[in-house]
Amino acid sequence: MTDDKQTPVTVIGLGDMGSALAGAFLDAGHPTTVWNRTASRAEALAARGATAATTAAEAVAASPLIVVCLLDQGTVREVLGPVAGALRGRTLVNLTNGTPRQAREDAEWAAEHGADYVDGGIMAVPPMIGRPEAVVLYSGSPAAFAAHERTLGVLGGATHLGADPGLAALYDLALLSAMYGMFGGFLHALALTGSEKIPAAEFTPLAVSWLNAMMTSLPAMAQAVDSGDHSAIGSNLGMQATAYVNLLDAGREQGVATGLMEPMQNLLHRAVAAGHGGDDLSRLVELLRTNP
Amino acid sequence: MTDDKQTPVTVIGLGDMGSALAGAFLDAGHPTTVWNRTASRAEALAARGATAATTAAEAVAASPLIVVCLLDQGTVREVLGPVAGALRGRTLVNLTNGTPRQAREDAEWAAEHGADYVDGGIMAVPPMIGRPEAVVLYSGSPAAFAAHERTLGVLGGATHLGADPGLAALYDLALLSAMYGMFGGFLHALALTGSEKIPAAEFTPLAVSWLNAMMTSLPAMAQAVDSGDHSAIGSNLGMQATAYVNLLDAGREQGVATGLMEPMQNLLHRAVAAGHGGDDLSRLVELLRTNP
Ligand SMILES: NC(=O)c1ccc[n+]([C@@H]2O[C@H](COP(=O)([O-])OP(=O)(O)OC[C@H]3O[C@@H](n4cnc5c(N)ncnc54)[C@H](OP(=O)(O)O)[C@@H]3O)[C@@H](O)[C@H]2O)c1
Ligand SMILES: NC(=O)c1ccc[n+]([C@@H]2O[C@H](COP(=O)([O-])OP(=O)(O)OC[C@H]3O[C@@H](n4cnc5c(N)ncnc54)[C@H](OP(=O)(O)O)[C@@H]3O)[C@@H](O)[C@H]2O)c1
Repeated sequence: MTDDKQTPVTVIGLGDMGSALAGAFLDAGHPTTVWNRTASRAEALAARGATAATTAAEAVAASPLIVVCLLDQGTVREVLGPVAGALRGRTLVNLTNGTPRQAREDAEWAAEHGADYVDGGIMAVPPMIGRPEAVVLYSGSPAAFAAHERTLGVLGGATHLGADPGLAALYDLALLSAMYGMFGGFLHALALTGSEKIPAAEFTPLAVSWLNAMMTSLPAMAQAVDSGDHSAIGSNLGMQATAYVNLLDAGREQGVATGLMEPMQNLLHRAVAAGHGGDDLSRLVELLRTNP
Repeated sequence: MTDDKQTPVTVIGLGDMGSALAGAFLDAGHPTTVWNRTASRAEALAARGATAATTAAEAVAASPLIVVCLLDQGTVREVLGPVAGALRGRTLVNLTNGTPRQAREDAEWAAEHGADYVDGGIMAVPPMIGRPEAVVLYSGSPAAFAAHERTLGVLGGATHLGADPGLAALYDLALLSAMYGMFGGFLHALALTGSEKIPAAEFTPLAVSWLNAMMTSLPAMAQAVDSGDHSAIGSNLGMQATAYVNLLDAGREQGVATGLMEPMQNLLHRAVAAGHGGDDLSRLVELLRTNP
């Protein structure tokens, strides 16, 4: 059921994520126009009340607010390039994953075509969209964000990080790094325990408790990074570098590829070799900076 | 204050962790004997009521239960080798980090010297010891564990995983893998956000919420690994492999070393190349098995 008092929205890109975004706008009563390269993906949304545009140009012309969620920035340029003229006076909200540099370039490109630009990073998987646990980070035009904050809020918690259009992508990719680190370590753990036929479902509750317990140390690590005081308070890097050898040896003993875990060993050894064996893990951040 | 009804315990190794273990036994009223290569580290514990043995042999002779927490298994053999004869009839609980193979060898070695052997993995940092949030995983002699379960329980929740002495080390190293994955990803994230001078303390609350949200997907990943059904339910590997390129490109753009994050890209690309682009991340576990 759409509502005339709600801002009309166009969603371009109806993959798993774009479909979830369009569904949330529909659920909130926004007149919603959708377009996707493969037209069949619009059908379910049309059945829920969306207008399925037959061309991207028609989709752009339908709403003052254009939300784009395509595979990558190359796809965004491919789809929007030919219809750039139609963007004038509208707000383009690009929720496609990209780098800070790409977001800054897209903002310039949008400005050249008379459109306001807001970049966004979706910190959620599709089933979370439209629920309070979804977070979408935005950056770029503060005025355009303010004008559409309520509408964007139907997707999940909307946070504006600043006028630099690159900030949302920076935060997004930083958060994804943390997530892929956790997922990679967890998958390695499942391979290790699986090597002794321990069911993943049996090991996982222990892993979740352990990760929750260890997560409580992230604020202290952050404080050490901000202050530059990395003195160990119970788990020194020398000890950690020694135990880490066991982690890799066990992988080899148990027939598990150690590739995911090796770069951390290199960092631990470099830190100890540089005289930081008495420090905390937070010290490693310095070794990750190539432009110190 | 020690208590005659409590089992006397010897703690060998008074680094950060061994000192915390001995402190917990003292707090619970166990007559506690301690020994450390560098004798000065026993002083604070002696002031709290521990008996500081002057030799490892004297320490072993003092108690029926010997808890060892040294740097690594090489150190354990170095310290216990010369006093092996004194272990007969006692229970050796080895809480030193090691591999499953080392634990199995240590159990055989202990048996040759007439000692019961229990291996353990401490899932806690020293300040957690003696508190309910500490977990210590044990494996090896079920009878010896049962006999000392109450005493070991003063260190934190005590779980016996089975008679195979290697199990505690396997679980321990698997859990450490998950932890180092999470920590590595988080440190990479801090390097990325730090490249734009964003304080770590400002970014960390977002990271903690995000990791908590993403952690809810671990049980589903575990189920996919157990069932072998890796069909994507919203975040396909093809999309993930594409976004992952941005994660690495952003590192290069921002002057952050991408080493910690590269092995995951290799896995994503291998999975997509093998035709699994429509699957979930759980599919990657198969690529980690070198003995399928
Ligand atoms: N799914 C998630 O968990 C999640 C979470 C946060 C952010 N994101 C981001 O959201 C964006 C979309 O992800 P998704 O999960 O929806 O991916 P997806 O299900 O794989 O969908 C990809 C979308 O891109 C379109 N596309 C690809 N190449 C195209 C081309 N050359 N021309 C026109 N359209 C093209 C596809 O159209 P067709 O249908 O015609 O192929 C489809 O609409 C990505 O940037 C992703 O990183 C996803
Ligand atoms: N700290 C943690 O967060 C933590 C958590 C879980 C498990 N663990 C495990 O617990 C064990 C001890 O860790 P820790 O944090 O206590 O390490 P630590 O503070 O670095 O202490 C190392 C201990 O090993 C002793 N040692 C080293 N080389 C020796 C040698 N050649 N001969 C005799 N003694 C020697 C040290 O004696 P000196 O004092 O004479 O040097 C000290 O008692 C490790 O296996 C570690 O992986 C630690």
